[in-house]
Amino acid sequence: MLGAAELTREYQRVREQSIALCEPLCIEDYGLQAVAETSPPKWHLAHTTWFFETFLLKPFVLGYRPVNAAYDFLFNSYYNGIGQQYARGQRGLLSRPTVDQVYQYRATIDAQVPGLLEDEEHTDRAIILRHAELGLHHEMQHQELLLTDLKYSLAQNPLYPAYHIVGQGSAHHLNVPLRYIDYAGGLVDSGTDDDTAPFCFDNETPRHKIYLAPYALADRPVTNAEYLQFMQDDGYQCAELWLADGWSTVREKSWHAPLYWRQQAGQWRVFTLHGLVPLNLTEPVCHVSFYEADAFARWAGARLPTEAEWENAARNEKLAGHFVDAHVLQPRSASATSGVMQQLFGDVWEWTASSYGPYPGFVAPAGAIGEYNGKFMCNQMVLRGGSCVSDRRHIRASYRNFFYPQDRWQFSGIRLAH
Amino acid sequence: MLGAAELTREYQRVREQSIALCEPLCIEDYGLQAVAETSPPKWHLAHTTWFFETFLLKPFVLGYRPVNAAYDFLFNSYYNGIGQQYARGQRGLLSRPTVDQVYQYRATIDAQVPGLLEDEEHTDRAIILRHAELGLHHEMQHQELLLTDLKYSLAQNPLYPAYHIVGQGSAHHLNVPLRYIDYAGGLVDSGTDDDTAPFCFDNETPRHKIYLAPYALADRPVTNAEYLQFMQDDGYQCAELWLADGWSTVREKSWHAPLYWRQQAGQWRVFTLHGLVPLNLTEPVCHVSFYEADAFARWAGARLPTEAEWENAARNEKLAGHFVDAHVLQPRSASATSGVMQQLFGDVWEWTASSYGPYPGFVAPAGAIGEYNGKFMCNQMVLRGGSCVSDRRHIRASYRNFFYPQDRWQFSGIRLAH
Amino acid sequence: MLGAAELTREYQRVREQSIALCEPLCIEDYGLQAVAETSPPKWHLAHTTWFFETFLLKPFVLGYRPVNAAYDFLFNSYYNGIGQQYARGQRGLLSRPTVDQVYQYRATIDAQVPGLLEDEEHTDRAIILRHAELGLHHEMQHQELLLTDLKYSLAQNPLYPAYHIVGQGSAHHLNVPLRYIDYAGGLVDSGTDDDTAPFCFDNETPRHKIYLAPYALADRPVTNAEYLQFMQDDGYQCAELWLADGWSTVREKSWHAPLYWRQQAGQWRVFTLHGLVPLNLTEPVCHVSFYEADAFARWAGARLPTEAEWENAARNEKLAGHFVDAHVLQPRSASATSGVMQQLFGDVWEWTASSYGPYPGFVAPAGAIGEYNGKFMCNQMVLRGGSCVSDRRHIRASYRNFFYPQDRWQFSGIRLAH
Amino acid sequence: MLGAAELTREYQRVREQSIALCEPLCIEDYGLQAVAETSPPKWHLAHTTWFFETFLLKPFVLGYRPVNAAYDFLFNSYYNGIGQQYARGQRGLLSRPTVDQVYQYRATIDAQVPGLLEDEEHTDRAIILRHAELGLHHEMQHQELLLTDLKYSLAQNPLYPAYHIVGQGSAHHLNVPLRYIDYAGGLVDSGTDDDTAPFCFDNETPRHKIYLAPYALADRPVTNAEYLQFMQDDGYQCAELWLADGWSTVREKSWHAPLYWRQQAGQWRVFTLHGLVPLNLTEPVCHVSFYEADAFARWAGARLPTEAEWENAARNEKLAGHFVDAHVLQPRSASATSGVMQQLFGDVWEWTASSYGPYPGFVAPAGAIGEYNGKFMCNQMVLRGGSCVSDRRHIRASYRNFFYPQDRWQFSGIRLAH
Repeated sequence: MLGAAELTREYQRVREQSIALCEPLCIEDYGLQAVAETSPPKWHLAHTTWFFETFLLKPFVLGYRPVNAAYDFLFNSYYNGIGQQYARGQRGLLSRPTVDQVYQYRATIDAQVPGLLEDEEHTDRAIILRHAELGLHHEMQHQELLLTDLKYSLAQNPLYPAYHIVGQGSAHHLNVPLRYIDYAGGLVDSGTDDDTAPFCFDNETPRHKIYLAPYALADRPVTNAEYLQFMQDDGYQCAELWLADGWSTVREKSWHAPLYWRQQAGQWRVFTLHGLVPLNLTEPVCHVSFYEADAFARWAGARLPTEAEWENAARNEKLAGHFVDAHVLQPRSASATSGVMQQLFGDVWEWTASSYGPYPGFVAPAGAIGEYNGKFMCNQMVLRGGSCVSDRRHIRASYRNFFYPQDRWQFSGIRLAH
Repeated sequence: MLGAAELTREYQRVREQSIALCEPLCIEDYGLQAVAETSPPKWHLAHTTWFFETFLLKPFVLGYRPVNAAYDFLFNSYYNGIGQQYARGQRGLLSRPTVDQVYQYRATIDAQVPGLLEDEEHTDRAIILRHAELGLHHEMQHQELLLTDLKYSLAQNPLYPAYHIVGQGSAHHLNVPLRYIDYAGGLVDSGTDDDTAPFCFDNETPRHKIYLAPYALADRPVTNAEYLQFMQDDGYQCAELWLADGWSTVREKSWHAPLYWRQQAGQWRVFTLHGLVPLNLTEPVCHVSFYEADAFARWAGARLPTEAEWENAARNEKLAGHFVDAHVLQPRSASATSGVMQQLFGDVWEWTASSYGPYPGFVAPAGAIGEYNGKFMCNQMVLRGGSCVSDRRHIRASYRNFFYPQDRWQFSGIRLAH
Repeated sequence: MLGAAELTREYQRVREQSIALCEPLCIEDYGLQAVAETSPPKWHLAHTTWFFETFLLKPFVLGYRPVNAAYDFLFNSYYNGIGQQYARGQRGLLSRPTVDQVYQYRATIDAQVPGLLEDEEHTDRAIILRHAELGLHHEMQHQELLLTDLKYSLAQNPLYPAYHIVGQGSAHHLNVPLRYIDYAGGLVDSGTDDDTAPFCFDNETPRHKIYLAPYALADRPVTNAEYLQFMQDDGYQCAELWLADGWSTVREKSWHAPLYWRQQAGQWRVFTLHGLVPLNLTEPVCHVSFYEADAFARWAGARLPTEAEWENAARNEKLAGHFVDAHVLQPRSASATSGVMQQLFGDVWEWTASSYGPYPGFVAPAGAIGEYNGKFMCNQMVLRGGSCVSDRRHIRASYRNFFYPQDRWQFSGIRLAH
Repeated sequence: MLGAAELTREYQRVREQSIALCEPLCIEDYGLQAVAETSPPKWHLAHTTWFFETFLLKPFVLGYRPVNAAYDFLFNSYYNGIGQQYARGQRGLLSRPTVDQVYQYRATIDAQVPGLLEDEEHTDRAIILRHAELGLHHEMQHQELLLTDLKYSLAQNPLYPAYHIVGQGSAHHLNVPLRYIDYAGGLVDSGTDDDTAPFCFDNETPRHKIYLAPYALADRPVTNAEYLQFMQDDGYQCAELWLADGWSTVREKSWHAPLYWRQQAGQWRVFTLHGLVPLNLTEPVCHVSFYEADAFARWAGARLPTEAEWENAARNEKLAGHFVDAHVLQPRSASATSGVMQQLFGDVWEWTASSYGPYPGFVAPAGAIGEYNGKFMCNQMVLRGGSCVSDRRHIRASYRNFFYPQDRWQFSGIRLAH
C-alpha cells in the first residue's frame, strides 16, 4: 500500500490524467452513450469523483456537506448499499449537470481529499488510505473505459470522427512466426494476498494453490493476418468451430469480422481512436469476443489458456509493454524476436478459458465497497494483461479483468495455448 | 401563396426563429434524444437546413456544390426518394458535426437561398417559390417538434431542468363551467384546394363534400380539474372505459396520469419547459394520448369530435389564441366567458375521432416531396388546432396534424363533442 | 330477428357445423396455436359453448349450475366485464380439458339451450332470443376463425399437412380482363338499424347518411397472375409504393410474397387447407395484408374502395358466391363474364381504405356484451364481403369485418377502385 | 462398456421405459411445449429414436432406407454436422406425425437395432456398441427431460392437472439439524477415463489432478423449511445477497419463491407431478435456480461446493438414493440420522459453484457426435448427483449435468459447503 505522501502525489497524477484524456473532446462528445454497457465521458468524470466523495469524504470528514444531493442517484453506478441508481442506459440523457459543472464538482472534491489524506491524526486513517488507493485504481479503470466507450460511440457516426488525429501505428510490418513456450506446471500459487502486494483488488485474493498440467503458451498474440486466414477459411460460417452460444450470437448479430473492421472497395479498414485507417496485418487482432477467440483457437488446433496458466507465466515476466502512456491507443505489432515471450502486458487484453469466479477462500469486504467485484462472479470470462489504453500502474500479473463472452468493445485479443 | 418579397422576409423570420428558440440551450442540450420518435435540437436545425439545400439549392442552382456529401445520409429524415437514412433512433449519437458546424451549415445555406428566391428569370420560378414556402412551413413544424422533443428529453433528467426559467402561467384560476355549442351539420365542405388558400399541405386537399349529422362541441378544452375527477373515479382502472388497444397500453406502460404529472408529497406537480411546477387545475389537460382522450370522453358521457365536425366549427372562427409567440409554452386557462367557443386554435392540439387518411381524390405530389405527408396515412389519428408551441402563421382551420394513438409527448388535449 | 322455432333449428345446424368442421382433425390438431392471434380448434369449440353458457344459461336459467367454475377463466376471450382471462397466447398449453371433455361440455350446454329458447313464458324472452341469435353468429364467426387459424398452424409444419385432402380448385383458368363499373355516388345510406334487418352486429348500426363522390369498382378481385406482375415489377422492393408503416413491416418481416406462397424449384406453390398445391394464376390473390393491398393498388394506378363505396355497390347485389358450404376452402377464379360485378360476396374478404370506427350515433350495448365489437374501433381496417370459409348465412352487405393492417392469415384479397 | 448381450437387454429396458413413462398421458399432452427450452413428450419419443437411426442404422446398416426423410429436419435437436434443424421453440406445433405414427417410428427402429447389436462380424462392431450405449444414456437423459418438461407445461394450466395421481410423499416430517462433514482435500483426482469406467460421457474425461483446500459439505440438502426462513428474512428483497445478474433476474421475473410454489389462502402449496399439494417442510427445496442457491448460501453464511469438492466426496459413497424407479417423482425428506452424508445421489440435482467447462486435456470426439456435450461449455453451471426423476443406471459420481444459472425447471436443489 502506498504511503500518504505517495498517495497524495498519485492522487494529483491520476485526477489530472482524467482531465488530460478529455482534452481532445468537444463538449458534444461528453454526453455520448451508444449502448447501456458504455457510459458518456462526462459520466465517467463525475462517477469517479462521486466515488471519492462517497467512500472518503462523506464517511470520514466531520460535518461534510455533499455537493449535490441528487448526485448520489445520478452518479452511483451499481452500489445498492448506497441507494437507488439512475437507469444505466439513460446516462447519455443527462445534459445537466453540464461539462463545466462536472469539472467544478471535480475541483470541489479535489480541494478536500488531499487534506484528508494528510490528516495523520484521523482515527480512521488506515481505512482512509485504503479507500483512497482503491479510488485511484477505480479511476484508472474508468479512464480505460472512457476511451473504450468513447471509441464505441464515435464508431456509430458514419463520419468516423477521430478522438485524436495524431498517433503512430506500428513501426514495422514483419511477419513473425508464432512459437510456443513450454511451462512445467505442477502445484503453483495463484492470486495474491492483501498484505504482500503493493495494491490489488479483492478478487485477486487470497493466494491459493492450484495444480497445472504441463502447458505451452504462444510467444505473442494472434495477428490480424492470422485472423484474416480464419475468416478466409470460412471461420464465421462453420458451426463446428463455435460454442453453441457463440454460434447463436454470430447468426443473430451477423458477425463476420472483428468489431471495428470495415470493408471498403475490397480493402479492410479499421476504426481506431485516430479514425478509420488501413488494417495493419501484423498488429494483434483486437476487439474480438470470447466466442471469436475460442473459435479461432479451435480452428488453429489450439486452445485459450486458463487464467492460472497465464498468471503462472506472467508472474516472472517484467511488467513492460505498450500502455496508454505510449499514446498509440492501438495495439502494436510484436517485435521480430521470435521464441521470447512478448506482449503479455499491454497491447490487448487476452481472453482466457476461465469463467470469472471467486478464488477458494474469497471473502468480499463488508459494506457497499464489497459490491465492487464480488457480485459479478458469474457469466463472465477472465481477461488478463491490460491493453494499450490501460494505465501501466494499474496492471499486474494477478490482475483479473472480466467481461461477458459476447463483449467486443474492449481492446480484447487472443493468445493461444496448448 | 406568398410573393417573392414576402417569402424572403418570411425566410429571414423563420430561420432566425429557429436560432432564437435555441438561445436558452447549453451545448450539451443540443444532442439529447430520449427515444427514436424525438430528435435532438441540433438535428432539427440541420435537417430543416438540409430540406432547403435538397429541395431548392441542389435542383435549382446551376453547379451547386453540396456543403457535405454525408449530410444527405445524416439529415434526411425519411425521404426514400432521396436515398438511405441514418438510423432514426441514433441521431443523439452524432456529436459531429458540432453545434458550431451546424450553425455554419445554416449560414452557408442562408447565404444562398434569398438570391434564388429573388431570381425572377429562373425558369423554375414557380416551383422554387412553392418549395421555399413549403420549406418554411416545414421549419415551423420542426420548431414545434424541437420544443416538444426537448421537453421530453429534459423530463428524463431527475433534476428537471428548465428550458427557460422565465414564463408566466395562467393569470386566473376560475372554474368555468363547460357548455356545448350546437352545429346544424348537413352537407358541408371539408379541406381546401391549393389555389384558394394562402398555403396548405397536400393532405388538406382537395376540398370535398361531407355529410354531418347535427352535433355539438364543448366551448373549451377539458381542464386538469376535470381530468383529475376522471382519475379519482378510477378512470385508469376501469377496463370498460377504454378501447382494447388503449387498455393494453395502460397496463403495459403503467399509465396512471398524463405524461408529465408527478406526485410529490401528495401534491400533483407537472413538468413544463419552465421546470417542475404545481398543477394549475384550470388549465387545459395536456400531454394525453388519444386513448386517454377517448376514455375520458366515454367516462364523461360524451365523445371526441370527428375532424370534419371540428373543421366545420373552426372555419368561421377567427384564428386567435395562445401560440409560441406568447412565450408561455404551456396551455392557458380559458377565459371566464362561458358559452362562447374558445381556444379552438392554440393552447392544445385537440384529438379527433378521425383516423388520418386521404381525402377523396387526394393525390400525393410526384417525387420525393410526395413522401412528406401521404405515406403516413395509416394507423394515426388526426389532431386539430395547433398548440401553445405552434407558430400562429403555421396553423389554419384545415390543418391536419397526426400522431399515433399512444403518443403523448405533443401538447395534446381534449375537446368533447356530442 | 329469427323466431324461436327457426332459432332452435338454426341452433342445431350451427352447433353441428362446428363439429362437422372438426371431423377431419386428429386429436393432436385440436391443440395447435402458432401465435397469440390464433386459437386452437379445441378452444374455439369451448369458447363458443362458454358464450351460450355465459350469456344465456347463467343469467336466464334459475338455479343454473356452471359446468366448471374454471371455464370462466379459461374460455373467456376478452370480456373484462365477465372477469379475468387466461393468457391468450397460452391457449395451446391447455391439454386439459381434453377434446372429449370439451365435446361433453358442448353436449351439456346443447341439452339446455333449446329448452330455454322454447320457454315462451320467460320474462326475459326477448333478450334470450337476441342473445341466442348473437351466439349463433358468434359461433359462425369462430367457425371461420377455426379454419383460418388451423391453416396458419398447419403451415408451420414442414410436412405441410392437409386439413382435408379432398377439394376442388377452380374449374377454369381463363384470364378475364378486369373492368371497372361506375357508381354515381351522392348522398347515400350506410349501415343498418336493428329493427330493419334480420340480424346485424351493433357495429353496423345506425343507418346514417354519407356523401360519396362518383366512383368505380373493379368487376372482380385481383388475381394471382396480376399480383405476380406486381412482384416481378419489384413491388416488394420499391419503398415509394408503400405506406411508411407498411414499408417498415415489409423489411422487418422480409415479406416478398403473400403469406402462403412457397417457391420450390422455381415454381410458385401455395399452401391451402388441402396441402401444398401449384399456384392457380386465375384465382383471386389471397392472404395479403392491407399494406400489400394498398401497395398493389398504388402500383396499379388505382386505390382501394372505402367501406361506404363498397357497401353502396353491394346493397343491390344478390348475396351469392362461394362460401364454406362449397367445400372448396380456397377462393375460386372469376367467371368469364367480364363487365359484370362478380364475387363481392365470398371467395376473399376485400380490404377497404376505411379505418374501423364507430358510425355516427353508434352506441355500444350495455354490459359485457357491449365489448363484442365496440372496443376494437381503433387501429384496424375494415374488410367486406366474406370469404370461401365464411358461412353464407353470416354475411350481408352491411357486414364489417376488421383486422390490423399487417394481418395476413385471413382469406383477405384485393378489389380495386377509382 | 456393456457387452452386446447386456446392451440388447438394456436396449429393451430403456426403450420400454420411455413408453411406460408416457402411459399416464392423454394424446393432448404429447404435444405440449410451454417454452423453447422444453420439448413435447412426442418430440422426446421421436428424437431419441432418431438418434439410434442417425448414429447407428444409417451409418452401419448397408442399404438402410430412412423411415422418413423429413425426420432428419424435424427431430435433429442441435447437431449441425447432420444438417439444419426445425426451430426449437416450434416443436409443439408438429401435430403430425401423430402420436401413433411416432410409436410406429419407434417400433420400426426397434425392430432393427437389436440385429445390428448382435452382428458380431460387423467391421464397425466396436463403434456400434459404443454408439448404442451412448444412445441408451441419451434416452435416459431424455426420459428425465420428458418428465421435467411435462411438469413445466402442465403447470401452465390453471387446472393444475396431475401427470399421475398416485404417488407418495415423504413418510416422515422430522426436522433434522444440518451438520457439516469435513474433507481433507489435497491433490485429488477428478473426472474419469473412458477405459476405466463402465460408461461415461466425454465431458467427464480425462481424469486429472486438482488441488483442494480442506472443506466441509452439509450432510443433506437444504429443506423447504430452511428456504422458507430465507424468504421470511426478505431473501428475495435484499440486493446484497445476490449476484448482480441474479438480482436483475429476480426483479425482471418478479421471483419471490421457488418455481412451483403457489400461495393459496395464506398456505404454501407446491405443484408436483401428482398435482398441487401442500408444501412438505422437511423435503429438500427444489426447482431453484443457481442464483437462488447462491443467494441462499450467502444468507446462510455458507457457500456452494465446487464440482471437484462434490465429486471428491461422492467418489467413495455408495450410489444409493431415490431415483425415478421409486415412483415418487418428488424429492424425499432426509432420514433422521444426522451427521451422516445423505442424498448425494437422487432426490435433487445439486448446484455447484463451478462453471461448466472442459477438463484439462479434454478433446471432443470427431464428427457430429462430438457436438453432444462440448459445444455447451460456456455460460452454464454444473449440477451433480441426479434427482428423483433420473434413472439410477444413468448417474455416477463423475456425472456432470449443466444448466444456465437462471434455469429452474429441473429438479435442482441446494447443498451447502464451507
